[in-house]
Amino acid sequence: MRPAVVLLSGGLDSATVLAIAQDRGFSCHCLTVDYGQRHQIELEAARRVARFLEAKSQRFVKVDLRAIGGSALTDDIAVPRDRDVEGGEVPVTYVPARNAIMLSILLGLAEVVRAVDLFIGANAVDYSGYPDCRPAFLRAFERMAETATVAGAEHGLPFTVHAPLIDLSKAEIIRRGVDLGLDYGLTWSCYDPTPRGLACGRCDSCQIRRRGFREAGVSDPTPYDS
Amino acid sequence: MRPAVVLLSGGLDSATVLAIAQDRGFSCHCLTVDYGQRHQIELEAARRVARFLEAKSQRFVKVDLRAIGGSALTDDIAVPRDRDVEGGEVPVTYVPARNAIMLSILLGLAEVVRAVDLFIGANAVDYSGYPDCRPAFLRAFERMAETATVAGAEHGLPFTVHAPLIDLSKAEIIRRGVDLGLDYGLTWSCYDPTPRGLACGRCDSCQIRRRGFREAGVSDPTPYDS
Repeated sequence: MRPAVVLLSGGLDSATVLAIAQDRGFSCHCLTVDYGQRHQIELEAARRVARFLEAKSQRFVKVDLRAIGGSALTDDIAVPRDRDVEGGEVPVTYVPARNAIMLSILLGLAEVVRAVDLFIGANAVDYSGYPDCRPAFLRAFERMAETATVAGAEHGLPFTVHAPLIDLSKAEIIRRGVDLGLDYGLTWSCYDPTPRGLACGRCDSCQIRRRGFREAGVSDPTPYDS
Repeated sequence: MRPAVVLLSGGLDSATVLAIAQDRGFSCHCLTVDYGQRHQIELEAARRVARFLEAKSQRFVKVDLRAIGGSALTDDIAVPRDRDVEGGEVPVTYVPARNAIMLSILLGLAEVVRAVDLFIGANAVDYSGYPDCRPAFLRAFERMAETATVAGAEHGLPFTVHAPLIDLSKAEIIRRGVDLGLDYGLTWSCYDPTPRGLACGRCDSCQIRRRGFREAGVSDPTPYDS
């Protein structure tokens, strides 16, 4: 089995990506990045998902992006509620260069486990305001990876950033995961959980998740506050 | 004054880069990355250098690359002594994807302080075995940066990765820094300091530093063990 490295956040999208990569026959080494996000509850979800899907390995790396700030997820900026998620502008939950940072760490892991296949749950449908969720970024990252690494620069191996969800709606993602036997009750999406550990139901991520389950005709296992 | 972001490790090279960037009239925001390297003494050196050169700001970001391993600097692999540093092969002190990771975090800081000029002390002369110290990598990173960010993807701003030391010998770097008034006694290079805080004098980094001062005809302020 060929090795692959998978960014696994604990959210719905990356859990589906792991299920897809396993289904394609890759031996999956997962990377879960703790970047100082408010929703630490996501990290526990990532652990449950990796165990449930029997990933080959899982590593946790801390990067304290709060030292840089600039986002509602890492700084003292309020997470918006009931925002129009169709608006298209860059939301305050955008973390500057987040996918570049996380994919670069994933690239380091790829060098260590000798993988040239990277998997990420980037999605250009629901996250159209995030530049680092678009195909142009992923292609530019592949070129960069080939020059940054021993595998690429010395051995001429091409890197592929697989983003199997890039063009899918949330409902399509959910149906794909259900087909692969994924239990979405293990995943977590809310940016702003209540102290008692309920999903707020009103942040961008909750809004998008709820609508996805509704449109997929699948019952949503998430415990919402409202 | 235009803002710039500067990777500042506490070593000789990045201290010189900061002095050059300040001399070119940039207002410099420094990023010091604690990636779990053995030589924590470097971080204190970075603090001293930023203060001495009156940088606009300095941020410290932790990224625990020990969770990934694969290098003598972040794993339980011995730092080599008295190695032939002219050999050209990739040394065990290579940290997988290190410059991609550090430049990506620097890119996040650039977004926050609204800078499009990034400075790094990459050098293709003494670090010819490190793929991520070569011009091809830096150019590929610029292209990636333009697709990864709001500044690049939404506002069409080009990013420049400045590597003013890329073609310089260590002696030339030292002479440049001395001309700019830099005190190299504030900097630290050794990969493997003794418990009493002396430089080992025998790792790749000490060998290259010593020879640089000798060739520059400048007295080396470093306290060596041997």
